[in-house]
Amino acid sequence: MNLILLEQNEINGTSVVLADRRAKHLRKVLRVLPGDTVRVGIVNGPMGSGTVREIDQERVALDLEIGVMPTAPPPLCLVLALPRPIMLKRVLAQATSLGVSEIHLIMAGRVEKSFFKASLLEKESLRDCLKLGLEQAVDTRLPIIQVHRKFKPFAEDLLPEIAANYPIRLLAHPDPESGEPRPVFANRETPALVAIGPEGGWVDFEVDLFRKQGLETFSLGPRILRVDTAVPAILSQILLLRELAAD
Amino acid sequence: MNLILLEQNEINGTSVVLADRRAKHLRKVLRVLPGDTVRVGIVNGPMGSGTVREIDQERVALDLEIGVMPTAPPPLCLVLALPRPIMLKRVLAQATSLGVSEIHLIMAGRVEKSFFKASLLEKESLRDCLKLGLEQAVDTRLPIIQVHRKFKPFAEDLLPEIAANYPIRLLAHPDPESGEPRPVFANRETPALVAIGPEGGWVDFEVDLFRKQGLETFSLGPRILRVDTAVPAILSQILLLRELAAD
Repeated sequence: MNLILLEQNEINGTSVVLADRRAKHLRKVLRVLPGDTVRVGIVNGPMGSGTVREIDQERVALDLEIGVMPTAPPPLCLVLALPRPIMLKRVLAQATSLGVSEIHLIMAGRVEKSFFKASLLEKESLRDCLKLGLEQAVDTRLPIIQVHRKFKPFAEDLLPEIAANYPIRLLAHPDPESGEPRPVFANRETPALVAIGPEGGWVDFEVDLFRKQGLETFSLGPRILRVDTAVPAILSQILLLRELAAD
Repeated sequence: MNLILLEQNEINGTSVVLADRRAKHLRKVLRVLPGDTVRVGIVNGPMGSGTVREIDQERVALDLEIGVMPTAPPPLCLVLALPRPIMLKRVLAQATSLGVSEIHLIMAGRVEKSFFKASLLEKESLRDCLKLGLEQAVDTRLPIIQVHRKFKPFAEDLLPEIAANYPIRLLAHPDPESGEPRPVFANRETPALVAIGPEGGWVDFEVDLFRKQGLETFSLGPRILRVDTAVPAILSQILLLRELAAD
């Protein structure tokens, strides 16, 4: 936890009293004392510092000095075939820490239907996963997140609308040939979207539909990666390609 | 498990009988039947196919047809400040699946000494973690792995010898400025080494020592990443930069 992330409605004037895992972290890990200062941020709001006013066995009270909005990275949209819950939790934090602006969790041919029953998919639980990533990366901008239980309505009806905002549209797909060209970003601000498949990959029907929507294959080569390796690997390669763009 | 990985000494002529998690995977996940063929490989040896000869409640017997050695990717060496055991296990599989040739797990100022007591650091346990990465990525080449319990002897005495094999030497270090130039690979075969720090990063003394050994800062930007995000993100960016090298 590199940032104490606060919800706007927790703040009372210019102070906040914490009594949950954040208080525990301040007491047990950071071992703060009255007068110490920690980095704080408000969800989807500015960051600043909090000075410890009082500590007891359960609670930590902070006086806040809120300052600047974090700079927003250029839009990066992740379309992800829903992984199993334990993996989903990890991957959401990974993606958020790397800096995505929008996440769509979708059904696919090789996704187990039961994954959609996970309590993790409840709005508050998803939000908690994303907050872990923000606390890690020192950011306050919560990605937009949506769950889509059917592939076709998502890919045919919704995706065209979403993709319209993203000039670079990629489909992660392991390719034994790996001959396809790298995406070329117009500049360092160009928004990008990438769709990453389930274990076992996208099925042909899905690949065809994505291609029709203008997504181009993006491959890390012939090696098959687990989703908690593939997601950071692909997102960070896209971030690098964007950074290398000649402005 | 995308590859059934065998040890040479398990093989009896041209067949093998499995009774461990691999047999379970074949029976319960892949649900193989006699006559079915699966991808097999020998640790540090060739790959090929195995045809199911017999299955019972515990064992699966395979007839082997062993063929080609997997192509070796250009050398990539990971020097990693030892993470906590649960994270280490994950990161070793991630790195191996992406394709590293050599791993050095080292002490650093912000590494907890107790991490070195983990039973995971026993030779066989480390080997098992690496094998998970190979099974995932369909590769048989086990990275060399070494554990170094003291920072200075490693960085001063051993690292120069190791680094001599790697023309590209990088030090992952979060940089708020992020102004340093990207490494330039001479060609797509150029060996590279990268040192990735612990939670909280390298201390100044370590950064200085690494710089003296010719390591140059490589940053993913100002965001602070957990090691299971940082390792795949950094390795995959290095792999991409190497691939982009003009031959």
